[in-house]
Amino acid sequence: MIKAGIIGATGYAGSELVRLLLGHPEAEIETITSKSYTGQDYRAVYPNFNHIDMVCEEENMEELAEKCDVVFMALPHGQASKRVTEDILKKCKIIDLGADFRLQDTDVYESWYCEHYSKEILKEAVYGLCEINREKIKGRRIVGNPGCYTSCSILSLYPLLREGLVRENSVIIDTKSGVSGAGRGVSQGNLFCEVNESVKAYKIASHRHTPEIEEQLSIAAGRPVIISFTPHLIPMNRGILATCYADLKESLSYEDLRAVYEKYYKDEYFIRLTDRGVFPETRWVKNSNFADIGFTVDKRTNRVIVIGAIDNLYKGAAGQAVQNMNILFGLDEKTGIDFVPPFPV
Amino acid sequence: MIKAGIIGATGYAGSELVRLLLGHPEAEIETITSKSYTGQDYRAVYPNFNHIDMVCEEENMEELAEKCDVVFMALPHGQASKRVTEDILKKCKIIDLGADFRLQDTDVYESWYCEHYSKEILKEAVYGLCEINREKIKGRRIVGNPGCYTSCSILSLYPLLREGLVRENSVIIDTKSGVSGAGRGVSQGNLFCEVNESVKAYKIASHRHTPEIEEQLSIAAGRPVIISFTPHLIPMNRGILATCYADLKESLSYEDLRAVYEKYYKDEYFIRLTDRGVFPETRWVKNSNFADIGFTVDKRTNRVIVIGAIDNLYKGAAGQAVQNMNILFGLDEKTGIDFVPPFPV
Amino acid sequence: MIKAGIIGATGYAGSELVRLLLGHPEAEIETITSKSYTGQDYRAVYPNFNHIDMVCEEENMEELAEKCDVVFMALPHGQASKRVTEDILKKCKIIDLGADFRLQDTDVYESWYCEHYSKEILKEAVYGLCEINREKIKGRRIVGNPGCYTSCSILSLYPLLREGLVRENSVIIDTKSGVSGAGRGVSQGNLFCEVNESVKAYKIASHRHTPEIEEQLSIAAGRPVIISFTPHLIPMNRGILATCYADLKESLSYEDLRAVYEKYYKDEYFIRLTDRGVFPETRWVKNSNFADIGFTVDKRTNRVIVIGAIDNLYKGAAGQAVQNMNILFGLDEKTGIDFVPPFPV
Amino acid sequence: MIKAGIIGATGYAGSELVRLLLGHPEAEIETITSKSYTGQDYRAVYPNFNHIDMVCEEENMEELAEKCDVVFMALPHGQASKRVTEDILKKCKIIDLGADFRLQDTDVYESWYCEHYSKEILKEAVYGLCEINREKIKGRRIVGNPGCYTSCSILSLYPLLREGLVRENSVIIDTKSGVSGAGRGVSQGNLFCEVNESVKAYKIASHRHTPEIEEQLSIAAGRPVIISFTPHLIPMNRGILATCYADLKESLSYEDLRAVYEKYYKDEYFIRLTDRGVFPETRWVKNSNFADIGFTVDKRTNRVIVIGAIDNLYKGAAGQAVQNMNILFGLDEKTGIDFVPPFPV
Repeated sequence: MIKAGIIGATGYAGSELVRLLLGHPEAEIETITSKSYTGQDYRAVYPNFNHIDMVCEEENMEELAEKCDVVFMALPHGQASKRVTEDILKKCKIIDLGADFRLQDTDVYESWYCEHYSKEILKEAVYGLCEINREKIKGRRIVGNPGCYTSCSILSLYPLLREGLVRENSVIIDTKSGVSGAGRGVSQGNLFCEVNESVKAYKIASHRHTPEIEEQLSIAAGRPVIISFTPHLIPMNRGILATCYADLKESLSYEDLRAVYEKYYKDEYFIRLTDRGVFPETRWVKNSNFADIGFTVDKRTNRVIVIGAIDNLYKGAAGQAVQNMNILFGLDEKTGIDFVPPFPV
Repeated sequence: MIKAGIIGATGYAGSELVRLLLGHPEAEIETITSKSYTGQDYRAVYPNFNHIDMVCEEENMEELAEKCDVVFMALPHGQASKRVTEDILKKCKIIDLGADFRLQDTDVYESWYCEHYSKEILKEAVYGLCEINREKIKGRRIVGNPGCYTSCSILSLYPLLREGLVRENSVIIDTKSGVSGAGRGVSQGNLFCEVNESVKAYKIASHRHTPEIEEQLSIAAGRPVIISFTPHLIPMNRGILATCYADLKESLSYEDLRAVYEKYYKDEYFIRLTDRGVFPETRWVKNSNFADIGFTVDKRTNRVIVIGAIDNLYKGAAGQAVQNMNILFGLDEKTGIDFVPPFPV
Repeated sequence: MIKAGIIGATGYAGSELVRLLLGHPEAEIETITSKSYTGQDYRAVYPNFNHIDMVCEEENMEELAEKCDVVFMALPHGQASKRVTEDILKKCKIIDLGADFRLQDTDVYESWYCEHYSKEILKEAVYGLCEINREKIKGRRIVGNPGCYTSCSILSLYPLLREGLVRENSVIIDTKSGVSGAGRGVSQGNLFCEVNESVKAYKIASHRHTPEIEEQLSIAAGRPVIISFTPHLIPMNRGILATCYADLKESLSYEDLRAVYEKYYKDEYFIRLTDRGVFPETRWVKNSNFADIGFTVDKRTNRVIVIGAIDNLYKGAAGQAVQNMNILFGLDEKTGIDFVPPFPV
Repeated sequence: MIKAGIIGATGYAGSELVRLLLGHPEAEIETITSKSYTGQDYRAVYPNFNHIDMVCEEENMEELAEKCDVVFMALPHGQASKRVTEDILKKCKIIDLGADFRLQDTDVYESWYCEHYSKEILKEAVYGLCEINREKIKGRRIVGNPGCYTSCSILSLYPLLREGLVRENSVIIDTKSGVSGAGRGVSQGNLFCEVNESVKAYKIASHRHTPEIEEQLSIAAGRPVIISFTPHLIPMNRGILATCYADLKESLSYEDLRAVYEKYYKDEYFIRLTDRGVFPETRWVKNSNFADIGFTVDKRTNRVIVIGAIDNLYKGAAGQAVQNMNILFGLDEKTGIDFVPPFPV
């Protein structure tokens, strides 16, 4: 059994991770930590765990590294890079659900986030988008687990950029997210009456997932990709829909693009290409690790419009983290996260 | 492996059953049938099953009985009683998610529903409320799977009636249900804009779950129990909350009642008693087989107020149906339905 | 024009009051105050007022009393009773939307709330449930504007208690409220993801609206009425539904009770009795001053079940406050609050 | 008093129109008609009108024209063009809320919709986007009331196209709509459980509002504008948010564009430009005739991103229809539709 530790277990992503690992047949939770709820019963913090006895421990990174085979970190940005050292990595594997080990370019990191405290280790980290970087993840000591918007956006556009089919500077990604993406932190903007029955764009042209998407799509394209990225908040708990626009370099048919998408995703269990004329909706992937992707070619504008849908807490966070763990430890990638999405839920 | 057939697989309860059985380690789905979608891919009807190949078959009861060890029926009332015969029961076990085999008194059935077409078999059927009737279910050929409101209401009140602690004619059950309880049938009243941002009571003092609750509570009490039952529709997908009121015959403390509830439920895995001062909320049981129950004693009125919460499609339908299958086939009762409820979802 | 001041204009109820008074043809807003947003543009706090220039002032009770004909107070309990003095009442009329001037019995107030700082003035205050106390309100200097749950509950049950038709100790009120009733204050429990897709009971047998309902129903009945009151939180913005149960003293028909309800409410513009077999739903009164009331007689239990529906911020707070102002100043009671409820909204 | 008739009064838009006209000080409803509910009480169809007596009449176009000064038509496309004749127009003014009199190019109409039955009259019709075509509307006999998505999209982009600041073929409009836009017709896709907790794009690159937006923006630009338009369905009742992307021809600052927007909209009462860094959200315009517009310049991509928000049933349908009536009859444009948006609602 893989012994797992979870730092930051009382956020929504941390809690989803606790849930998935409790059901994982090859892993067991060794320790969960929480800054806000140290010493408290986990079932008091999350009564959905009412039948389970667990206590939120105080964090002790070194002790965790000693006891665990893998430590998951679900922390605000800037926190993980302070904790991970060469010494820690000698003892356990790290899967960081935060932003600290996602961007390969530290300058980009520091211009969008804050100071980075472990730049050497960042060089070693792999971007844990499993379907794209599977081979690079194997054997690695530290994984930067992708963001929710980014997972959905990159998977949706990867084949197009990889094959050089769209103009690199034409990409526009308009995303819609459920509210759980904002976490459990208390703020007026996330009160029920402020979110319900409304929709808004936020952090327009300035959201921190922008450079993450750009970096990965640039790697895929082999040249710089600069995007417009607009996140929106939708009155629902979970789910992300990415509506992606890109200008085709040449005139291509649906079938042409279908062949390209199948080249990359045909054998990917967790990526489900929708049939022609059918498009992803978040309800069909909610509470699962699936990413549904569909697209159409708009002949009038010679644009391709790609729709991607994931569950932000699952494939966009905890589920993919478990998928990364499975890869790191040589397990079947689907272990513990292979469930049909429930509906309606 | 238990071979299972599902009649009526394209309603919400039928679909939930398909999902649970697909993940069940000891069962496999032999056939699914649908009147409305015969011949169609299941994934076209429910795209959450996008990665799975299944086709909706035309129903053939005899063939199903031949091929299957158990047949689940998720049909409108009056349909199952036409299908189940002595001959069928010799070939397979039946778990009926509809109303036809729940009430033991056929007169009561016919006064609240319609003609009953297999009265002899009704006598043999057992009311499949697992925690109460476990021993009676074992070895039976046909199970009437309880209704959603009734599962929640009976479990909430059973210890009080069984022990004779409350006045039998004082019981009032005020329930709140998510919209999935109304099924996938198309009607103006269930349109998004008609349900969203509103709450209503319906079928006041006339809902068909009333006699089902009364019959079971009367059996528990050993004398007639006549209740007021008021269902309400709440703008959410899943979940039932039952707020139950009853006059205590004598003055009793919280501790007195706690002891009674623990006597019956302490060892029940799927029943979770909440701590004193903490009450069930549907979010903590959504998408699970758990029933959370909590209560308080109101000294001012000498009433006990009991709150119960379940997921109407899971413990209130498909989950309990699987639980009944597990009992019928001698499996661990939790097999295939033992999951921590996800949150937020 | 009536000059109005509003203390606490940045809560949900205060904001609703600002909106209604801005549209009132016989009133004008002289000053709005806010503790949290002193000096800030109101349109920055509530962008629905984006086209209107108003600034949140610092509160100065004496100055307000000088400048205004009427001062509305929308404050946490215990605050209004500190501000209202004989001197203030000589200068302006007071309509308090909080709890301080609702209960006539100061002992009851102090046992459910906190110390009361103006007991003499409390004696003078009138309970501003317009349809019941209209004549008493006229000419009064200070009005205790009823609570949201209480407005709905008392109006629903008043005729039955007034006429002595139900057992006084049998009354059970099970209410369902939208989230705006909890106000704009920030707390984890009111975050979108914590409220959405769930329903819960809270403050069971201990909510502060209990004594308010009991006092008014006791006055109506002419003898003590002790009730069970259970509020529930529903995932919607606005609206309260009260489901009320009471044992009939004698066997009475629907027509008997209909006659009683019409006796009291036939000419009440803002009370709409629903037709037989039709019951109130919050969507039909949302964003209006109407209270819809319907009922049925359950012959099986000899109970009457009454359903009442209001908008908690409108008839349950700001709308009724304006209605009280209209009465106090001799205007047509409907002035400024006579709108058809929008739907769907 | 203007005598008004409403054909199709039992759809959501028709019902909103009934509500607004009932409150309009200069108009009175002469007749309402409904195909589905002929002869029924309006309050039975929409219980929010519970206190008002009105009956749904059978439609008789000629009689309506005789009796009314203005007839509003809220019908499926293809219906209005069959009804409006020269003879009708001699007797009354027509405001059509459907699609039949919006497009000036009949070929475009017929390629996106169906046969058009009154092409001559179409030439006379004016596109009733009040803020843009106010002067053209005055004195006209027939108005094509704009669609909901189109009102929001055109108002958001008009100044940019009118001034030639953006590349005409670069415009992408990604819209998010509440469910009331789909009307009250019954379909599985609009059931609560199918819409709630999900988001989807639909009619991608093929929605009928596309040519309407293109025609108006082309007129504004003085050259062809071809757009990508993607509508999305959001789990809320009302509201449309349009997120618009366009490439700037030259490098322009926020201030440059601000000056342009103010040139066109500074004196428009119903258009509210948000402050720099603040963006429209549908909650701030819900249940009102306001259109909120905000924008930002993304230096990284040299794109302008404009956000527009309206209420789809109000400014996007019935409210703008009343605004058009006010213009046609020489009233103050705000008459009967000048209300602060309620919040939260």
